[in-house]
Amino acid sequence: MAELVNRGIRVPHLGQKAPVIDVDVHEALPSVRDLLPYLDEPWRGRVEAPDGFADIDRFPYSYPQVAGLAMAEAAIGEGAPAGSSYELMRDQLLDPYDIEYAILVGSIQPTDMRVQPEFATALASAYNDWLLENWLSQDDRLRGSVAVAAQDPQAAAREIDRVGNDPRIVQVSLPASTRDVFARPFYDPVFEAAVRNDLTVAFHHTNATETAVGLPTYYIEWHTAVSQAWQSQLIGLVCHGTFDKFPELRVIMIESSWTWVPSTMWRLDHNYRSLRREVPWVKRMPSEYIREQVRFTTQPMEYPENPDHLYQMFEMIGSEEFLVFSTDYPHWDFDSPQHVFPKTFPKELRRKILAENARNFFDF
Amino acid sequence: MAELVNRGIRVPHLGQKAPVIDVDVHEALPSVRDLLPYLDEPWRGRVEAPDGFADIDRFPYSYPQVAGLAMAEAAIGEGAPAGSSYELMRDQLLDPYDIEYAILVGSIQPTDMRVQPEFATALASAYNDWLLENWLSQDDRLRGSVAVAAQDPQAAAREIDRVGNDPRIVQVSLPASTRDVFARPFYDPVFEAAVRNDLTVAFHHTNATETAVGLPTYYIEWHTAVSQAWQSQLIGLVCHGTFDKFPELRVIMIESSWTWVPSTMWRLDHNYRSLRREVPWVKRMPSEYIREQVRFTTQPMEYPENPDHLYQMFEMIGSEEFLVFSTDYPHWDFDSPQHVFPKTFPKELRRKILAENARNFFDF
Repeated sequence: MAELVNRGIRVPHLGQKAPVIDVDVHEALPSVRDLLPYLDEPWRGRVEAPDGFADIDRFPYSYPQVAGLAMAEAAIGEGAPAGSSYELMRDQLLDPYDIEYAILVGSIQPTDMRVQPEFATALASAYNDWLLENWLSQDDRLRGSVAVAAQDPQAAAREIDRVGNDPRIVQVSLPASTRDVFARPFYDPVFEAAVRNDLTVAFHHTNATETAVGLPTYYIEWHTAVSQAWQSQLIGLVCHGTFDKFPELRVIMIESSWTWVPSTMWRLDHNYRSLRREVPWVKRMPSEYIREQVRFTTQPMEYPENPDHLYQMFEMIGSEEFLVFSTDYPHWDFDSPQHVFPKTFPKELRRKILAENARNFFDF
Repeated sequence: MAELVNRGIRVPHLGQKAPVIDVDVHEALPSVRDLLPYLDEPWRGRVEAPDGFADIDRFPYSYPQVAGLAMAEAAIGEGAPAGSSYELMRDQLLDPYDIEYAILVGSIQPTDMRVQPEFATALASAYNDWLLENWLSQDDRLRGSVAVAAQDPQAAAREIDRVGNDPRIVQVSLPASTRDVFARPFYDPVFEAAVRNDLTVAFHHTNATETAVGLPTYYIEWHTAVSQAWQSQLIGLVCHGTFDKFPELRVIMIESSWTWVPSTMWRLDHNYRSLRREVPWVKRMPSEYIREQVRFTTQPMEYPENPDHLYQMFEMIGSEEFLVFSTDYPHWDFDSPQHVFPKTFPKELRRKILAENARNFFDF
């Protein structure tokens, strides 16, 4: 048997006489960036952006932004995603904006893994240790979220018990998923463990979040309709009686936008009046649970032409406590605390939204 | 060969010697109503209702209402669904409420058929003939919608051309589907034919409409979240440039509810400001297309505790023309024209919503 030698690796040569045609051989593209010389604008820029389009089997949309997902100033480059440097976060966010507390929402969501739940549970646990060691120990202003793999609710509850009593951990992180409704009794151990450890439960969308029509064609469509995921999770929590089962449960909807809340709340109340015998375990008007047990974040803020309309929308919800401030640092649609409110928002209310509401809700 | 005789049908008996075990034999349940003696309340009532739960492979929810889907007064019974009698519709709706025109929205939606598109096209055509002969010829106040099978857009366009010039036909009926976005260029022939025949395009949900989380567990959840389907269709029409391609297109969202419109419109405008380079064919602010080319129906109306909030919501949309009146006769959540508006709605505006807006939009 002869041997071919290539880059020091000896490859056997069987000296076969008959010709061979192989119709399944994989050439590897090292990175989608290797396609840059072959791409025209605007597609070239979508890949070139520091946090730009990564791969076809990852988040399918390309961001039509200069730095992809990242705000341009926060881009780090050289393979490190925006938000991966504590020092930059401190210099760009914590110090200049006088942040009292910043809640880290978690950068992986093991609940989204559709396969191998034991591995998802191990990743969640590893992430929490990494978070405590590399972030929460760096700065007293930082607070963290427990990553869990809710597809194994008992394991998730054990993980919450393992790290949830650390005072720097303030909430449990769940995806604003469109694959499952977390109000289903199957997930009760997660909510139970959150309440037991005095943690809020946070819903934030992920790359796996879809809409009523699945993944719509364009990012602008997805980014407009994605609130539907939180709407459905919220409706589920009310109708499955999760707030009745766990009266001390506190839920926060992060990056859901909030101007859809009056409409959804009214519709849910109206339907409750005529359909409540379908869900007899729901004991109070849906809007009462929402006002008392749920908070929403400011970012992404809506900007109607007439800013009074935004304030009216706020009044419709009927609570000065329901909104808490957020920037979404370091993403492209970052909201600054100095510019987030229309000037017509009452000063006292701004103060509550900027810090007091969160201070009370998280018991800081 | 011996023969067994049963009810006059001769059944062959092969006189086989070896014993036989057959493990796949189907006994037929004539109707789910045959299970009534074996069902306890509240489930018994869900099946017993005149338009109650029909079968497991049909609309999956049971309505927790006394007459199922129907309003109790409109129930006919004996196998005929509510709304199947013209005389009853005349006596319950057209005469007592002084209806100038009533637009029939269509009781089948061949676009929902996922298989055998040629059959769906034939059903659409048959339905339109039945509609003209059995309904539209009975009463000058009735107007009809063209049923189409949009999965074959060319055939749908031919059907629109076939019946769309009849003056009693005023619109094309599409499902507020969550299976596909009708703004995709594939469906352009349908919109083109609607415009060519001076017809509106109506979106109404069907039994196949789902939500961001698919079919949620309870009917109250579905009935609250189902607006998401129209939201996604509307967002699609804007972002795919359907209104740019067809500047004379008129779209009506039927039974979508409408208090979600300000939030969706603001978000879409806000996203357009930052993301419009993804969709350069969209030439104007999304809210402009929506105000000018889209109408929404009143039913189902929302009832906030403070009725001024409903009027504010109306003002936020920035048009007195966008809303047109509807009852949803003969369904359980029927809205009467006499009680639909809070007393604080300006009288002149009520008049516009009750008839003038629709008269202008449909060019009656």
